[in-house]
Amino acid sequence: MNSKRNVYLDMKSIEEAKQCLFDHFKDRVTDVETIDVVKSKNRVLAKPAVAAISSPNFHAAAMDGIAVDAKDSFGASQDVPKTLVPEENAFWVNTGHVMPEGTNSVIMIEHLNILDNKHIEIEAPVFPWQNVRKMGEDIVATQLLFPRGHKINSYSLGALLSGGIFQVFVYKQPRVLIIPTGSELKQWQEIQPKTFTAGDVVESNSTVLGGLCQDHGARFDIHPMLRDNFETIRQAVADATSGDYDMVCIIGGSSAGSEDFAKPVIASLGQVYVHGVTMMPGKPVLFGEINQKPVFGIPGYPVSAIVAFELFTGPLLLRMQQLPDIPIQSAQVSPARKMASKLGQEEFVRVKIGSVDGQLISSQLPRGSGSITTLTEADGVIRIPRHVEGILEKEKVQAYLLRPLSAIENTIVITGSHDNTLDVLADQIRQRNSQVSISSSHVGSMGGLMALKKGGCHMAGAHLLDPHDGSYNISYIKKHLVDHPVRVVNLVMREQGLIVPRGNPENIESIEDLKKGRLTFINRQPGSGTRILFDYKLGQLGISPEDILGYENDEYTHMSVAVAVLSGRANAGLGIKAAANALSLDFIPVVTESYDLIILERFFNSSKVQTLLNTIANDDFKNRVKALGGYGVEKTGQILY
Amino acid sequence: MNSKRNVYLDMKSIEEAKQCLFDHFKDRVTDVETIDVVKSKNRVLAKPAVAAISSPNFHAAAMDGIAVDAKDSFGASQDVPKTLVPEENAFWVNTGHVMPEGTNSVIMIEHLNILDNKHIEIEAPVFPWQNVRKMGEDIVATQLLFPRGHKINSYSLGALLSGGIFQVFVYKQPRVLIIPTGSELKQWQEIQPKTFTAGDVVESNSTVLGGLCQDHGARFDIHPMLRDNFETIRQAVADATSGDYDMVCIIGGSSAGSEDFAKPVIASLGQVYVHGVTMMPGKPVLFGEINQKPVFGIPGYPVSAIVAFELFTGPLLLRMQQLPDIPIQSAQVSPARKMASKLGQEEFVRVKIGSVDGQLISSQLPRGSGSITTLTEADGVIRIPRHVEGILEKEKVQAYLLRPLSAIENTIVITGSHDNTLDVLADQIRQRNSQVSISSSHVGSMGGLMALKKGGCHMAGAHLLDPHDGSYNISYIKKHLVDHPVRVVNLVMREQGLIVPRGNPENIESIEDLKKGRLTFINRQPGSGTRILFDYKLGQLGISPEDILGYENDEYTHMSVAVAVLSGRANAGLGIKAAANALSLDFIPVVTESYDLIILERFFNSSKVQTLLNTIANDDFKNRVKALGGYGVEKTGQILY
Repeated sequence: MNSKRNVYLDMKSIEEAKQCLFDHFKDRVTDVETIDVVKSKNRVLAKPAVAAISSPNFHAAAMDGIAVDAKDSFGASQDVPKTLVPEENAFWVNTGHVMPEGTNSVIMIEHLNILDNKHIEIEAPVFPWQNVRKMGEDIVATQLLFPRGHKINSYSLGALLSGGIFQVFVYKQPRVLIIPTGSELKQWQEIQPKTFTAGDVVESNSTVLGGLCQDHGARFDIHPMLRDNFETIRQAVADATSGDYDMVCIIGGSSAGSEDFAKPVIASLGQVYVHGVTMMPGKPVLFGEINQKPVFGIPGYPVSAIVAFELFTGPLLLRMQQLPDIPIQSAQVSPARKMASKLGQEEFVRVKIGSVDGQLISSQLPRGSGSITTLTEADGVIRIPRHVEGILEKEKVQAYLLRPLSAIENTIVITGSHDNTLDVLADQIRQRNSQVSISSSHVGSMGGLMALKKGGCHMAGAHLLDPHDGSYNISYIKKHLVDHPVRVVNLVMREQGLIVPRGNPENIESIEDLKKGRLTFINRQPGSGTRILFDYKLGQLGISPEDILGYENDEYTHMSVAVAVLSGRANAGLGIKAAANALSLDFIPVVTESYDLIILERFFNSSKVQTLLNTIANDDFKNRVKALGGYGVEKTGQILY
Repeated sequence: MNSKRNVYLDMKSIEEAKQCLFDHFKDRVTDVETIDVVKSKNRVLAKPAVAAISSPNFHAAAMDGIAVDAKDSFGASQDVPKTLVPEENAFWVNTGHVMPEGTNSVIMIEHLNILDNKHIEIEAPVFPWQNVRKMGEDIVATQLLFPRGHKINSYSLGALLSGGIFQVFVYKQPRVLIIPTGSELKQWQEIQPKTFTAGDVVESNSTVLGGLCQDHGARFDIHPMLRDNFETIRQAVADATSGDYDMVCIIGGSSAGSEDFAKPVIASLGQVYVHGVTMMPGKPVLFGEINQKPVFGIPGYPVSAIVAFELFTGPLLLRMQQLPDIPIQSAQVSPARKMASKLGQEEFVRVKIGSVDGQLISSQLPRGSGSITTLTEADGVIRIPRHVEGILEKEKVQAYLLRPLSAIENTIVITGSHDNTLDVLADQIRQRNSQVSISSSHVGSMGGLMALKKGGCHMAGAHLLDPHDGSYNISYIKKHLVDHPVRVVNLVMREQGLIVPRGNPENIESIEDLKKGRLTFINRQPGSGTRILFDYKLGQLGISPEDILGYENDEYTHMSVAVAVLSGRANAGLGIKAAANALSLDFIPVVTESYDLIILERFFNSSKVQTLLNTIANDDFKNRVKALGGYGVEKTGQILY
């Protein structure tokens, strides 16, 4: 039985929790060490860097030519040239040479009339210190080059060496021990993907947090994974906090369940300061102090773990080295749809961002905190404050960016129907041109047309069957995009059919077999081309949707339909052959359809869209598509409209 | 004699040179290697990463509670609760557990009424798949996680591991050999700053370029330094291009002088593509191909070297790994003064940028390509195109940023008179608050007042003597800042006097001694408080400026005056004792003056200015100032006006 549970006491807001953290650890700065400047990139000065020598430390020729005392050149002109004598009042110098005693300017070689070894004629005077780099011009000995807290970059290395500083005092990098916990988890080293079984979960958070530690200037070690056991976790934390580590992060078990040991462990060895923050994801974050060291309980869901780290752990690591917070790039975006949010908690919503007609349009990704891909696919994050219930469509909001704005602007936004060849296209286009990328959102064919209409994307993928004449897309465009000129390019011809379990145990032969009422179907969402196709086929067969068990359950992509079949949630679904092939499922063909890209006319000739069209037209793309199975490329790249 | 010279043939514009470079090396992509994902941060995928397993790879409980078949819950209500039986139609699960066979939803523990071990009452139904993470919800096996060319970051590590990818194919990091050349240079390892002699220059470019190689994803080795000798340089380049290196950078000797061997070396072993680009700094850049490898001749002046690398070498290194260009952050700034530029060459002008009243104001730094500190002190760079002759005061122009905008916005801009205690202040303020920094430009006291008037700074340092009553600053403020309310805070009292060579060889006792006409004086620029003081003293003594040799030669800072005395350019200069002390020169006191900060009223209560005032008021600051010598801190921090 499972009823012994902890509780969150005093949930704090993000600001309160941060304040509490920084107050408790405000003087926890790491020790100082001395290292060679040539190895100091990205380290932080713990003492001011004061120049030991001047640069240059002598008056230096700044040009090739002759060094002279300017006075000796006064009066020279084209009409009355002056003659100078090498080694007497004129001295050959190259750039960088020490100015000879008694000279204070350089006449450039281009301005000399060399008569012979003994006589050089000049036709213009120089002024004192012309073409000379004066001593200390760049750096004066004793000058402050960088204050403490300066993060050394590539340029700084040059200033330090030029100023005669060859060793620097820097803060030691904080050392973090990361302790992954969770009885259900496996370390990647123990796993063979082929024999991976249900219930196995790869422990990935420790590697991600290790990377984030590095991103915040810290070093890390990963402790061998621990099962959910109070005593073992307690021992590991006790050892780490009494050793050399500056910080400990326990991953997992930070919540208030009966198997959640992070809080009792910290409480038993030290003091818990905060448990639970009113935010989403990341609510069950926890931190306290053991043996004067900060100890974090990081939630186990990957997105929660990252949000908790970046809000609390990372900023503390920076302060331990006297570094300012990592600057956030943000931009104003307009959500393509209304975004709801719960009052009383701050939400971090991952969004894709497209630059369309000079506006940044955001579309939200699933909010599940278990889905790491919502972060890796995201271009940015919108924070919805605690006191706000949601954000309206087209309302301007700030998003902080996870990809540079320039990359977002070089991205082609494709909204609409989902097809696996879009992945191939995404990869091929990167191979062709490293500056352009594509971003696709799956909202179904009709959703794509609506996005085109609203200006939320550059192009839409669609396969909308017109039941009257068997044509694809054109009649829908004429109806729905009257005032929005578009071009249509075929991406692929593809087979749609029934995806069924391997070996087809129910011997399904056609859509008619689903009518029996014993088999469960998994549908696609309304507005998707596949749903329209299914409804069309049901109509042809005179079957009512009520006769199909599972008609009301829908998924948003072909792959999710295939997964539903694979996992036994459904006996069959309508989808593309590539999805069946990918999961080694069986496939019963129903129809071959045209999957097209509908491109807004005004973007058609842009260089990024032309890059995309050239990629499609190329045999490399076509060959990879053919290899997927279930596709025809005979019309690929043809402009249909 | 020195007349054998190369010439630049066909100087190219930046765009032409880039095009030429990328055309010649467009297919020079590095080899592929396989590495563990956990060590792959910052590497670049050479093949698409396709998920090997789904995540989750089973239907998983998303809450703690009981797993049920949703049908068994239908109909439950507060009035008519339903009773479920553990191990029969209800199964205890924790978050992350595999959903037991036959169940499809989880009822949260908070919603259960546990009667006894055998009976659990529920008062509301669940719908199918509620509180369940469906198989493949995050990642579906066979799904493209990242296309080739993706740079792996901390988040990516999580997606790769979760998708069962434990090794990745990545591009090898390009290997660069950096060959520093120059007979006048010394390696830092051979130098003792104390015994450093005139003519010694520390070779620093190789370390800077090494850092930049890393910043562009490459590895580097530094060849032992070579003297300016054709044969040795040729041999080193021949060895490197026939070995494992993917690229060679020769530093120095890229120009067209008689001792410049980069071009003849590349020409003798391969082919030179470009020599000379119409830009400033960086004009003498050079590149070609030897044994199918790109070889660069990088100019020896530090700023030229960096500009040349960042425009050509770095972008090529990125393309060799299929990486997009490093995104540039830019912002619109208004130059505080007119910026001149030469037609026909693109100029890279380093600027300081201050955020004042929500506007970004830029002030240019010296343009010398020999001065690395113009890059380390710069907040940004303004590119003035070839066809533009200059930029007007207050004209809006784009600057690309070298520091994050947030850091620039947290910077207090101090313009005006120069004093060494500003360096101490810069350091102390970083110790107090890692988010706030100060940036000071030295334009003299009057220049500071004018900057306040124009809104080009937050505060000005000034020590303007009123000859009528011996007061400082106030009368000038009343005259020049009528409509600009300010506050005045004393920073320090300081001694001004004559800076003379060590041991005072000319036995100078007072300003009167300079009248003799034999000794050379070094002056400060017009508008500086020190110049005003000097003129006042001359007036008192009845000495005319014409009687002072060197009156017309001026410098912009106390330290430059001290350097002029140290290097023998002048016998004496008027300046602060701290500058004399710093270079171990002698000092003859003339006056004690008040050096104040004049702060625009509207910024006075801002948190960054208050941080600065608190720093000044603190004993740590005062003690460090006293240690410099020549300062009094009895009024430090007092509000005088």
